[in-house]
Amino acid sequence: MSRPDIRVVIMAGGSGTRFWPLSRQKKPKQFLPIVGSKTMLQETVDRLKPLLPLSRIHTVANAQQTKIIRRLVPRLPAANCLAEPQAKNTAPSLILATASIFNQNPQAVVIVLPADHLIGDVPVFLKQLEAGAEAACASDSLITFGIRPSFPATGYGYIHFQKKKSDSFGGFAFHSVLEFKEKPALEQARKFLAAGCYWWNSGMFIWRAETFAAKLKQHAPRFWPFWERTAAALRNRNRKALEAVFAQAPSLSIDFALMEKAEGVVVCPADFRWSDVGAWSSLLEVWPRDGRGNAVRGEVLALDSEKCLVYNPDKLTALIGVRDLIVVETEDALLVCRRDQDQKVKDILDKLKKNGRTRLI
Amino acid sequence: MSRPDIRVVIMAGGSGTRFWPLSRQKKPKQFLPIVGSKTMLQETVDRLKPLLPLSRIHTVANAQQTKIIRRLVPRLPAANCLAEPQAKNTAPSLILATASIFNQNPQAVVIVLPADHLIGDVPVFLKQLEAGAEAACASDSLITFGIRPSFPATGYGYIHFQKKKSDSFGGFAFHSVLEFKEKPALEQARKFLAAGCYWWNSGMFIWRAETFAAKLKQHAPRFWPFWERTAAALRNRNRKALEAVFAQAPSLSIDFALMEKAEGVVVCPADFRWSDVGAWSSLLEVWPRDGRGNAVRGEVLALDSEKCLVYNPDKLTALIGVRDLIVVETEDALLVCRRDQDQKVKDILDKLKKNGRTRLI
Repeated sequence: MSRPDIRVVIMAGGSGTRFWPLSRQKKPKQFLPIVGSKTMLQETVDRLKPLLPLSRIHTVANAQQTKIIRRLVPRLPAANCLAEPQAKNTAPSLILATASIFNQNPQAVVIVLPADHLIGDVPVFLKQLEAGAEAACASDSLITFGIRPSFPATGYGYIHFQKKKSDSFGGFAFHSVLEFKEKPALEQARKFLAAGCYWWNSGMFIWRAETFAAKLKQHAPRFWPFWERTAAALRNRNRKALEAVFAQAPSLSIDFALMEKAEGVVVCPADFRWSDVGAWSSLLEVWPRDGRGNAVRGEVLALDSEKCLVYNPDKLTALIGVRDLIVVETEDALLVCRRDQDQKVKDILDKLKKNGRTRLI
Repeated sequence: MSRPDIRVVIMAGGSGTRFWPLSRQKKPKQFLPIVGSKTMLQETVDRLKPLLPLSRIHTVANAQQTKIIRRLVPRLPAANCLAEPQAKNTAPSLILATASIFNQNPQAVVIVLPADHLIGDVPVFLKQLEAGAEAACASDSLITFGIRPSFPATGYGYIHFQKKKSDSFGGFAFHSVLEFKEKPALEQARKFLAAGCYWWNSGMFIWRAETFAAKLKQHAPRFWPFWERTAAALRNRNRKALEAVFAQAPSLSIDFALMEKAEGVVVCPADFRWSDVGAWSSLLEVWPRDGRGNAVRGEVLALDSEKCLVYNPDKLTALIGVRDLIVVETEDALLVCRRDQDQKVKDILDKLKKNGRTRLI
């Protein structure tokens, strides 16, 4: 078998709000140096270097975000940076990206990666992507990666898999998926954890372009006309037609539109360390910590303070007698938040929106 | 009896550190608009307007602070703004100020007021000052004001007074002082509170200039040569001589140098509401509070947050799920401090000093 034509599609269209006040509508998480010194998008691109050249990396995002992508990764071919005419959730995004690659090579293997995830063990990550590509070539499967749950999370979807039987590619096990489960309530999440046959849905996928098309036609017929018209508009380089197609596309996630309806979906458990870096508190697991568990960016003097996350690169921060706090300062806003309540940052954004404080959101 | 020649001496020489990062060595509390929209010094001057003209108000502070005073209260006569050659605690300051007034009129009544106290009920305050001035004219007493303790404070000195006997001036009782007590330990403070014959030492005094001189000569002979040389240097407008005298002056508080040694000291309990606004947390009792007990300067969005003090006039502050916090932001520093630990701000300053971060202290 000849070496497969592997492509990566980086989904960079998210409009993260959970890192406010650092992240803004126009500057979501993937465009911020939250984990390291480079932006998460740049880190996502960089870690793929041993696997494939930049010419095989595609991005999908809105037009404005695509401009940022071009600036951050200037050597990425312009044609690879797909600008969605409008934001329509992940199903239309991935149909656009996969159809674009399908037009070049229907047998191409498409690896879908979010632009804003942290990968702890990159060599293993790349090995697993290669194994997934191998699996995609060897079968008509849609492949996903599952994350072994470390706690009964209510913020992730779960993948119910067949525990007893699996195929092996590159030394990694690929299990049949029985069912996709949406974000559960806590009680349900606890049951998933206890059952031992549920993994978190990482949002990373692998498929051959033609397999994706076939599954779409069979299991998501509602999207089939959208696929056909999108592929045609791309072939004809007809931006107006693409806009018209997108205007009518249903706004659905790929999980909901296709994955949970399709047959022949398999899941491989991630052996690389993974985090979706979902909110400020997650950085306490990512940034280096001092002896009292404080993780900081900027100059911090901490007295009798522990388990605090501080982002304030431009001025001195003094902490006295505080714990479990998130402190984030930017040019125009300051956030002081209890560590376990960082999801309420959204409520602050809602308030700002309601008050017309557009500049701050 | 002719109306007495009343003077006020505002002690504006403190180098407050407790409002860091807003207060700095060169910008102590009295020069900050911490309580209202004017600086505490300006408020101290303003509230005296019904009692006496600006020409009767004197200040004592170091040379640099005196420049600030002149800028903040430009209509104060330059000759009234006494610049200490060097900082030597309150005894040398008050000898300088009282000697200066003595040179003009030995019978003048000197009212000593700190520049950085909050007075809640100004009409009563002024009535009590007048009553104190009357008492000072009617006797050879050193007069102090005592604050009825509301809790067993360990941060104030206490005045032990004779409970059963008092003189009355202007309708206010003046009790003989039995003893000055330095800042007590908590157990001792509790006993003082229970005893009912101890008030906090407010640091406000009234005396005739000649009475002060006589008491000094008799009860603080160590300071007598300092008084004589200071008075002479002032008469001769000899700055060099004043500097030489100050260089040799012992660095003692007026309480320690004179008040606790002198006979004929009386104390009048303050009927005006009083606060020395000793640290950030004290402003929670001073600034208006929202329904959850938060007191703020600046735009604050508070979610599930209570009893927080926020000073951040220049940008938005978002609080989520926090309580009992002090949050203070300035151009070059951010403080996040548990409400009951604001006295540790000093430790931050010590660290900064040790690290040579002069610009920040």
